[in-house]
Order: sequence, then structure tokens, then C-alpha cells
Amino acid sequence: MELREIGEFGLIDRIKKNIFPLLPGVIRGMGDDAAISSLTSGTELVSTTDLLVEGVHFNLSFTSAHLLGRKSLAVNLSDIAAMGANPRFALLSLAVPMKTTVEFIDDFIRGFLEISGAYDVSLIGGDTSSSPERLFISVTLLGEGKKENLVCRCGAQPGDDLYVTGTLGDSLLGMQVAQKRGGKPTSADEAYLMERHLNPIPRLPEGKTLAGRGLARAMIDVSDGLYSDLRHICEESRVGATVWVERIPLSVPFQSLATVPKEQNWQLAVKGGEDYELLFAVAPEKAWELKELARHWKCGLTCIGKVEPFPQGVTIRNEQGPVDDAFLKGYDHFA
Amino acid sequence: MELREIGEFGLIDRIKKNIFPLLPGVIRGMGDDAAISSLTSGTELVSTTDLLVEGVHFNLSFTSAHLLGRKSLAVNLSDIAAMGANPRFALLSLAVPMKTTVEFIDDFIRGFLEISGAYDVSLIGGDTSSSPERLFISVTLLGEGKKENLVCRCGAQPGDDLYVTGTLGDSLLGMQVAQKRGGKPTSADEAYLMERHLNPIPRLPEGKTLAGRGLARAMIDVSDGLYSDLRHICEESRVGATVWVERIPLSVPFQSLATVPKEQNWQLAVKGGEDYELLFAVAPEKAWELKELARHWKCGLTCIGKVEPFPQGVTIRNEQGPVDDAFLKGYDHFA
Repeated sequence: MELREIGEFGLIDRIKKNIFPLLPGVIRGMGDDAAISSLTSGTELVSTTDLLVEGVHFNLSFTSAHLLGRKSLAVNLSDIAAMGANPRFALLSLAVPMKTTVEFIDDFIRGFLEISGAYDVSLIGGDTSSSPERLFISVTLLGEGKKENLVCRCGAQPGDDLYVTGTLGDSLLGMQVAQKRGGKPTSADEAYLMERHLNPIPRLPEGKTLAGRGLARAMIDVSDGLYSDLRHICEESRVGATVWVERIPLSVPFQSLATVPKEQNWQLAVKGGEDYELLFAVAPEKAWELKELARHWKCGLTCIGKVEPFPQGVTIRNEQGPVDDAFLKGYDHFA
Repeated sequence: MELREIGEFGLIDRIKKNIFPLLPGVIRGMGDDAAISSLTSGTELVSTTDLLVEGVHFNLSFTSAHLLGRKSLAVNLSDIAAMGANPRFALLSLAVPMKTTVEFIDDFIRGFLEISGAYDVSLIGGDTSSSPERLFISVTLLGEGKKENLVCRCGAQPGDDLYVTGTLGDSLLGMQVAQKRGGKPTSADEAYLMERHLNPIPRLPEGKTLAGRGLARAMIDVSDGLYSDLRHICEESRVGATVWVERIPLSVPFQSLATVPKEQNWQLAVKGGEDYELLFAVAPEKAWELKELARHWKCGLTCIGKVEPFPQGVTIRNEQGPVDDAFLKGYDHFA
């Protein structure tokens, strides 16, 4: 069934009917000029928003509506994780081409609500529109946290250790695999990498623990790529950083499928993008506490380098010394 | 200068450099994974979001970037006004075609910040992306208000009077004029109507007063058109309504330029859309207090009808009785 058959209010009803019960804190959800919700008294509001544009951020021949629904919230959850906050309320706006089927929308909403439910996030509002060519998704996620526990990009200090959760580069390689295979993986390794690209897991429990225990002094989610995001930490903290090539965590499927010469594998991982892992700085005296804690993390944790004094920039080095970083450039939507 | 010359981070910098000083409540604005902000303790969070799609909601040959920047926030302010809340924080996401000039973006941001500044709203975050064909704008506006003062669509009671601020139909006619004249008005009346379409004024002080004094029992902003939005109030309040054709407020420029037969002028106004006036229900015993208060409102105020018992729907009537409402249909993005 095409969207034109149910109309705009039909589309909104299809979203609304999936939302029950209202979670605590939602006083008035969808269905008014604005939503009304409560934060726990004494906490700060933590807000983030992400745009996903068909043909720029996703390709409908590789991803299912269901995974796209999950990912459109997951990338926002990842930002809230990087602040060490609690996600609470989401607003979802969709600009949808006429030819889109109602089934596509239903699957998208199911994916979105699956992940929002898993993290106790309430969908409280949004907007819908037609779109002449492409699907546009805009999600705003509101979270909360106590001011003293929230972690910005700006607190890294020279001498801190730099850590990253999980492995890097899987998503970039997964996207390349999806393009090459037209969305149909031909091996378990290919399927693993595509899953990493299409269905990222936000590191929310890890982010909250790191923030709540005062372990991370500066934190960011790796969305633009390790190099680019580490530079954000350095700029905001007015520090430099060294990353050791040998330490960069690479998954087994990544190592077996990366098509560059083996000794350049790490370049893909450093450039990466859409990893949605957490990158953070920790005082060296907390290394033991962190290690104990992270033993229970399925995603794993790796120390990849050190925070250096300003004005050193970001240096990537191997055993021989700094490597040539000409290949390094974050993803720029307009370049 | 084209956007590709400054890149994505250049675009973000152009937005950030315009934002200072931080208003109270903004702990961390743009430049982190998420923004951190505070609400006045003891208030509720009021959230709304609106999408504006080039070719659907606006036409770049009629509107300037500056007015578009204003309007993209104004339509959200109008939703916050209809709740009787205080607007506080905005997130702005832009998906921008490559060929867009930096000057266009600068003008857009200037317009956006002009109106955000006028209402003490802080731009705290957002996202940017390229867009293959069209400009997409997504704005989320966060406000606050005390629970007992906020006004939903659901409190209207049979016997209440129905009021609307300002005049209706100007925006619809203004859009038609803009299309006909290619954006160049040829008279003061045409300029007035186009301004009403391109640069709507959110009724924030009016909405706050109506809510704060407990005058409005149900309220909505007229964005889909009077008939459509009155139906929303009726559905949410489980009431009916009667609107008197003769009472519908029409501006002088509207009356002189409407091209339908004079006796059908009101049809345009009832169907309308994008009026961004407030429609609300008030207990009859408060009529005097409201009238006194509204004497100071430049936009004016008109009683246009009555709330009726359920299950009567929305009836439009003139002196002879109910009129044929076949012409009535809210704007549906997918129909």
C-alpha cells in the first residue's frame, strides 16, 4: 500500500498506535502542538540531533527499513552515551517520498521503537512531510544527567591514557562490502562487517559507567573517524595526542577482508567513520579500576595512546616513529 | 562562495561564531556530542519539532534566506506559544545542496538568530549534511512551563467560547500572490499578504498570557487551517464546535485581493493553512477578563464560535444554517 492511500494523518496514526504505555516522565506525548515531559529534578537536559539523508547516509538497496529505524536512533544514543547521560525522550521527523510503501514505514517504526524500548526512551513527538525525491530522517534525542557526572570533550589532560571501546574500521569496510555485494553478504565475515555498519550498538552502559565513576575526563563517540574525533577532543581540551598504530583494535573479520596491504590495515581504521565506539581520556592512576570494570564489557576496551601537551597535534606513530598522515582526512559532507 | 569551498566544519563554524553570549541555562552549547542545559527547577520540558522541505514548504524563488531562517524557528515558536510555554533552546539541522552559497547560509543563520534572540532562545546544537537536490531544514525547539499552566488541545468544554487571534487566510492568499508575482509584490496589499506568509509572527506573549492566567482551556496554533485544527481540538477534547462564518476575521488586504466571489471569502480563510494564529476555548464567564486583556494586543482577537457537546463535529454556519462543507479538507502532505 502506498503512503498516498493513508495520508499524513494516517501516517501519524501508524506511528502513534505503536506507542504505549507512556513511560514515566511523559506527561503529554504525540498529539499536541508540543510534548510535555519531566526530567528528574536536579538533573541537566542533554540534547543531540542527527540527520540521515538517503543517498548520503544510507542506501535503501543495502539496508532494511527495520535496521534504518534502529540506526537512526542508535546514532543519537551514541552521542548521549559519549556524554555519560541517560537518554529519555526522542522526536522523529520523516520527509517521505510518495512512492514509499506503508509497510516500509511500519518496519522503520518497529525498528525505531525496538531500540527506543530497549533503552527506555519515549518517542514523544515529531513531524512528517512528503519529500519529492529522497527519504530524510531527523531525530532529536533528549537525555539527562547530573552536571558533575557529564563528560564533555574538553577535560583531557597531558599524561592521560586514551582508550577506545570495541574495534575500529568495521563500519567503513562493512559499507564497502555492502556496496560491492549489493547488500547480500557472501560469508560470515562479510555479514559481520555489514551488521557493524547497518546496526551499530550504542555504548550506553559503558558511557554511563565511565561518566558516573568519574573515569573518563573527556569523551566522544567515534562517528567521523578516530583521527577526526580525536582532533575534536584535542581542540576542545587544548591538548595533543599520540596514537600507536599497533594498538588500534581491529576485528578478525576486518583483518581478513581489508583489501589494502596488511601493514596499512590501520589506515582504514584510523580514517574510518560511523564506528560509534567511545574514545576517552583517563588519568593513568585509574588504569587498574578501569581494567577491572571493563572485564565485563563484551565490546572490549583498548588503550591506544596518550594525551600530550599542547601544541602538539594528533600524532600517529609506529615503532619507527610518526607515520605520514597525508591519507588522513575526516569525512566532510561538502568536500 | 560555494559551500564546498569551506566544507562541513566551515559551515558549522559559520553558525557557531554567531552565537554569543551563551544565555542563562546553557551549560554547554554547540561543539560537543550533545548540548547540556538547565531548566528552571520545578518546570516541565515542552518539546516540538518542524520539518521544512524545499518545494513542499517553501520556494526559494519567493523567499529570502533571511526570512526562511526566521520562519523555520517561528513555526516552532508558534507551537510553544500554543502550549503557553516559554521557549528556551533550539537545535537546527540543515541538509544543504552543494551549489548553495555561503552567503545564503549566512543570511539564513542571521534570520534564525534574529528571531531566536528576540525570544531569548539559545541555539544549542544541530547537525549538517549535504543534500543531493533540495534544502531540508529540521528545527527542534525545547521550552518549559509549569504543569498547571500549560494548555493542551484536550480541555475544551461545551459552552466555551472559541477565539482566534489575528486574521485568517492571509498566508494562503499570500502564497498564491507570491506564486503569481514570482515573489515581487505589485501593491501594498500584496506585500502585506506575502509578508504574512513568509514572515509569520508567533503569538508567544499572547499564548503565555492566556495560559498563565488560566483563560484558555484548550489551545492550538492554526497551522493546518482553521477547520482542520479545530477538529484536532474537538477530537482531543471529545467535544463538537460551531463556527459562525460572519465572525471569521479577515484582513483588509485579504478582502480586497481574494479572487473568489466575496461571499465565499471565508472559505479560503477556513481552509487556510500556515496562519500561525492561536485558536482557543475560554469559559464564557471569563469573556470580560479576556476582552480587557486583549485590548492591548496588536494582533486583535475575535470570538468565532462555541464549543458544543459531543458527538457533534465541527459545524460551519451562516445566518441561514449550516453551510455545505465539501470544500473543507486540511492540507495533507500525502494526499
